[in-house]
Amino acid sequence: MGLISEGVTQVVIPVSALIGIGFALIQWFLVSKVKVTSGLVRENGQRNRLIEEDDQEVGVDSDQLVFKCAEIQSAISVGATSFLYTQYKYLAIFTGIFSAIIFLFLGSVKSFSTKSEECTYNKGNICKPALANAFFTTLAFLLGALTSVLSGFLGMKIATYANARTTLEARKGVSNAFITAFRSGAVMGFLLAANGLLVLYVSINVFKLYYGNDWEGLFESITGYGLGGSSMALFGRVGGGIYTKAADVGADLVGKVERNIPEDDPRNPAVIADNVGDNVGDIAGMGSDLFGSYAESSCAALFVASISSFGTNHDFSAMAYPLLISAMGIMVCLITTFFATDFFKIRTIADIEPSLKHQLLVSTILMTGGIAIVSFIALPSRFTIYDFGADKIVKNWHIFFCVSIGLWAGLAIGYITEYYTSSAYSPVRDVADSCRTGAATNVIFGLALGYKSVIIPIFAISIAIYVSFSLAAMYGIAVAALGMLSTISTGLAIDAYGPISDNAGGIAEMAGMSHTIRERTDALDAAGNTTAAIGKGFAIGSAALVSLALFGAFVSRAGIETVNVLTPKVFIGLLIGAMLPYWFSAMTMKSVGRAALKMVEEVRRQFNTIPGIMEGTAKPDYATCVKISTDASLKEMIPPGALVMITPLVVGTFFGVESLAGVLAGSLVSGVQVAISASNTGGAWDNAKKYIEAGGSEHARTLGPKGSDAHKAAVIGDTVGDPLKDTSGPSLNILIKLMAVESLVFAPFFASHGGLFFKWF
Amino acid sequence: MGLISEGVTQVVIPVSALIGIGFALIQWFLVSKVKVTSGLVRENGQRNRLIEEDDQEVGVDSDQLVFKCAEIQSAISVGATSFLYTQYKYLAIFTGIFSAIIFLFLGSVKSFSTKSEECTYNKGNICKPALANAFFTTLAFLLGALTSVLSGFLGMKIATYANARTTLEARKGVSNAFITAFRSGAVMGFLLAANGLLVLYVSINVFKLYYGNDWEGLFESITGYGLGGSSMALFGRVGGGIYTKAADVGADLVGKVERNIPEDDPRNPAVIADNVGDNVGDIAGMGSDLFGSYAESSCAALFVASISSFGTNHDFSAMAYPLLISAMGIMVCLITTFFATDFFKIRTIADIEPSLKHQLLVSTILMTGGIAIVSFIALPSRFTIYDFGADKIVKNWHIFFCVSIGLWAGLAIGYITEYYTSSAYSPVRDVADSCRTGAATNVIFGLALGYKSVIIPIFAISIAIYVSFSLAAMYGIAVAALGMLSTISTGLAIDAYGPISDNAGGIAEMAGMSHTIRERTDALDAAGNTTAAIGKGFAIGSAALVSLALFGAFVSRAGIETVNVLTPKVFIGLLIGAMLPYWFSAMTMKSVGRAALKMVEEVRRQFNTIPGIMEGTAKPDYATCVKISTDASLKEMIPPGALVMITPLVVGTFFGVESLAGVLAGSLVSGVQVAISASNTGGAWDNAKKYIEAGGSEHARTLGPKGSDAHKAAVIGDTVGDPLKDTSGPSLNILIKLMAVESLVFAPFFASHGGLFFKWF
Repeated sequence: MGLISEGVTQVVIPVSALIGIGFALIQWFLVSKVKVTSGLVRENGQRNRLIEEDDQEVGVDSDQLVFKCAEIQSAISVGATSFLYTQYKYLAIFTGIFSAIIFLFLGSVKSFSTKSEECTYNKGNICKPALANAFFTTLAFLLGALTSVLSGFLGMKIATYANARTTLEARKGVSNAFITAFRSGAVMGFLLAANGLLVLYVSINVFKLYYGNDWEGLFESITGYGLGGSSMALFGRVGGGIYTKAADVGADLVGKVERNIPEDDPRNPAVIADNVGDNVGDIAGMGSDLFGSYAESSCAALFVASISSFGTNHDFSAMAYPLLISAMGIMVCLITTFFATDFFKIRTIADIEPSLKHQLLVSTILMTGGIAIVSFIALPSRFTIYDFGADKIVKNWHIFFCVSIGLWAGLAIGYITEYYTSSAYSPVRDVADSCRTGAATNVIFGLALGYKSVIIPIFAISIAIYVSFSLAAMYGIAVAALGMLSTISTGLAIDAYGPISDNAGGIAEMAGMSHTIRERTDALDAAGNTTAAIGKGFAIGSAALVSLALFGAFVSRAGIETVNVLTPKVFIGLLIGAMLPYWFSAMTMKSVGRAALKMVEEVRRQFNTIPGIMEGTAKPDYATCVKISTDASLKEMIPPGALVMITPLVVGTFFGVESLAGVLAGSLVSGVQVAISASNTGGAWDNAKKYIEAGGSEHARTLGPKGSDAHKAAVIGDTVGDPLKDTSGPSLNILIKLMAVESLVFAPFFASHGGLFFKWF
Repeated sequence: MGLISEGVTQVVIPVSALIGIGFALIQWFLVSKVKVTSGLVRENGQRNRLIEEDDQEVGVDSDQLVFKCAEIQSAISVGATSFLYTQYKYLAIFTGIFSAIIFLFLGSVKSFSTKSEECTYNKGNICKPALANAFFTTLAFLLGALTSVLSGFLGMKIATYANARTTLEARKGVSNAFITAFRSGAVMGFLLAANGLLVLYVSINVFKLYYGNDWEGLFESITGYGLGGSSMALFGRVGGGIYTKAADVGADLVGKVERNIPEDDPRNPAVIADNVGDNVGDIAGMGSDLFGSYAESSCAALFVASISSFGTNHDFSAMAYPLLISAMGIMVCLITTFFATDFFKIRTIADIEPSLKHQLLVSTILMTGGIAIVSFIALPSRFTIYDFGADKIVKNWHIFFCVSIGLWAGLAIGYITEYYTSSAYSPVRDVADSCRTGAATNVIFGLALGYKSVIIPIFAISIAIYVSFSLAAMYGIAVAALGMLSTISTGLAIDAYGPISDNAGGIAEMAGMSHTIRERTDALDAAGNTTAAIGKGFAIGSAALVSLALFGAFVSRAGIETVNVLTPKVFIGLLIGAMLPYWFSAMTMKSVGRAALKMVEEVRRQFNTIPGIMEGTAKPDYATCVKISTDASLKEMIPPGALVMITPLVVGTFFGVESLAGVLAGSLVSGVQVAISASNTGGAWDNAKKYIEAGGSEHARTLGPKGSDAHKAAVIGDTVGDPLKDTSGPSLNILIKLMAVESLVFAPFFASHGGLFFKWF
């Protein structure tokens, strides 16, 4: 037994979660002190309070500006909310149908019998009937889905609440604007981590009321939580990704390329849709995605623990180790936040990127200590872990190493991602340089950069896997994934900071604010681009570890002891699995292409038919563009979503658990490469373009200015990169995780009724 | 025992090979009847015979034309020959060093002992010492390397001999030109297949003089032949690929895009380098590549057979089954050739593509019968095959199915590749259509097309693997690969036809021939583009099967019975293996980019500094461009080559055979996807551009003509596709095959001395 009792554990976890939620609310309150409503009479006749104007630096025609910002913010918020509500209707239908599938498939394992049976792993004990597992898995699925949707929704709410506030704060200086954007990101980060932990904690305790000492059944059912989280994330990421990029590509192709008007120009009819997209794709999608990873790694670790000595000995503190790590993570991130907002305030533009990067480093260093504390007080000094049919003896310091290596591998991936996507280093500069000879060489160099950028992350992930696997089998992998995600609040804070700053810049442009303000928001945004790439790096790295952990849990649950590449079933599974990321990417990229073409037509139509639009005397019809993005993304998210959801069911049912294991391993090893290269290629193109635009160095000035041939080539690269980095790349994380968690949930069914094809022939 | 005796087998194989060589020489003779030297006094003072001009259709200023063609042909031939000779110097150094490595590594297995030992598989018998195996493996390696180089060289020779002849024949009509180009392709196809078979056959018989009844050692040594073939192919493909694309991209970027002069315009200084490139890349590189696949699949099948009942029973006819299949293939292809040249002569341009496609279908149908004959007369009705430690009972009709499914899977891959890369179908037309909105959407749609095009080939390969693996374990896979390659003579004939026609078109342009002639050569070339894509599809499909067969042979030789994904060693091998194709592609694509940038600078320099170059009054300096391509490609081929050659040695030596098995499986399942998508994306972009240029339909005319915005966007896509389809894509075949065959050759060393890292820690 570890040093702390079950009672202490039962207090520490919910209290930490509540502190996290409280902290998020305080940050929200601090952001809310910036007022965006103005004293002017609004068009709809409402009258609002005047803004305080005492300490504004740049405040010409201030009332008018604030009013415009409020108006734009409201348009973005309304668009984003309406998209999410429409999406939720679809998701509700999906969730209903899939709940029924889960219940029926799992219920059929023992033909809907209500009789308790002997446990599978904890021999000699009696476990609850399979039907109960089916019911509770379905319930956990619904809870996971709900929490995931909530995470995305709250993130979107705070982001659309904070964007105009960041713009307005930029009038007071870059420091204020930075703090507003960062605090808003923190609201999302802490709400998500704390909610996720709290709901999981409560669910375990509620389920325990029924399951009692049957921890096998309890934690098998809890895996539904991960499935719910990730399946919502899939549609969130894919739908949001298609939305944001259709709007972005459509707006750029007509506005920037054909009409030669700047980005975020209010004359562009797709400009509101573009800004809405940032919130539904990069914020809500990303939130659901990382919540999914968090839920899945916790579930994978809990499941493996439940069939190891923690579970069979009913050692609750050790069992709750994954939750304690997350609780510690919230505390560590809370302290880390003060480094950005209070201890070391940024003063100049040059401080922004280092400040965000230091967040990662500080949280990683502090968390290493946190992991040590949790490992030594919660875990017994020696215990056994289930290792595919055998028992592996593990010590508590082994687990400390597993979690820590995951954490540090995440940092390494984050830093290497920065190297390949920030214009401060040679890779992006080389890509920018290749624009001299046109778009073709830019695309060739960009693709090559993306391919090259997979090398070090793959080695980092491989080392993490090797060490944690060797020390503690699949439990080691699961807690390594959890380690990478333990600083999720900080990671999400700096990640959400990006789209908020991006929107802030858009609002400044649309509201016609001065050049000084735009420069400030541009500087915030440029740092945000890099942190967004780092966030994607984290998301992919953790997804790789999470899906391997889930894969291990699936294999354990399905009773497979070896997955031998030398059998045809497994090998063709591997080959077809490795193909799935390509199929999926083809679907999502074409979806973006098709939706963008529709958007292009509409934007062209408006430019051609609305008189005065180019002169700024007539307002474009923003709503039609929002509707096109909404309709297209909801329609287009279904086929790729179906591919991911149906594949494990078909393979497991018809070709059995071994082929499915091959498919999972294949999609994992191939998907990770496609995802990393797609994200980094896109990020690099984006920043190469920004590098030329900013003209911050002698070299950059020889390529620019805006409108030069090299810049035009860079814009083409950036547009190609949009669907790669914001749609197909990040969605692939979910593909590999979701197929694994779905296989885990359905493992009892596949193990008992699967492989029909081989039974027939 | 089968129906035919060893004596018959010993006659049939060499006779078939000699017939193949004789047939190739006849075709060469027929091509040589077209004369390209003219009666004019040459600049160097030589005087040659007048051309027969009796049946020429278009013969204005004929002497001058023929002279110009002869001159251009000679420039191309000299450039190609000089490149290959320089490349061979590098290869000679590599071969020398690598021979020493092979001998030392394999000799050290039993510490260079000269004592005979008990056999590993054929228990109770005495086998030759490991040192002898080391010696003969090195010898086989040298023979394979020599044959591979010879295959590429002869192909280049006939191609540069035939290109101007095709141009001149085009004056008489499309039918004559087609037959000339096709016959020349056939020369290469038959020479390669027959030489490959003959050298392998002779080597086996010579080695047998020493080995006697030790067939284990004999066929283990013979695997060196495959390694030699493929390692030359690697440098041929990579070096040739970089050469051709550096020249092509460089010529296009300045000539077409900046100076607005047509493709193959003699004013472009890089035009000769571009045409040389087609011969060293698409001809010599492709020849070496397919020879490598052929040699490797034969070696893999022979090795597995030698440790199965054929080997232990010393049944030579059954043992020689792979060679008999190849011999039958030569005969079948010989008959098939007459369908194109004699039975159904083409009359109009519309006949060209069907005629080439029918070649594939006819050879496949005939070969199915051929396989049946060979299977029933050479194989015993029942025998056992080594299956990772166990023996599997197999019947001769099982083997018939294995070979046939490989053959038909190849046809399926060929046809699906055509569907995705020919402008006759909707995928390429959609890509062309996306050029309306610019280069960015063209690139997005093209990438999506490439990703999508992997789906069906992967299913075809998977089915072939599943069936042949289930029926006859790894021997089944090896003979399935051999089945896919059995019609290699026909495949290569229609494949080599492409670059020959391409060159013929280039020569027509450079010689300033009339529009009618250009139209004819363009039609030949367009069909050639599609067949080139089909050829690449074949090369990749067969590479996947071959490398799986080699992987199986390696695993058998290394004494591994399971490759369990659930062990960390194997899993991280899988992950890192899946990363290698990306690393390799990043290297080769950047190489092309860098070399192209150098070429662009030189071409720009010449346009700017040579007065009268644009007016056609001054000649550009072709030789400098040829030299840039030569130097760049030789320098740039070393790092990717080293990556492929060194990885198996490092992994095997330090991390052992299981990690290496993981790396091989990972690179196979991932590389196949990257290779197929890269080739098809590039092919589709190329043909989308040609579709717009040709303006053959109402739809195409709305996008064109040449120089329209849509056409410019299409040119960018085509340029991006160049390194994908002609450098990195096809080189990946070799990556996956070569790592597998190298592992197989070094397996005895890795099994006895490998895994140092795990021994140390």
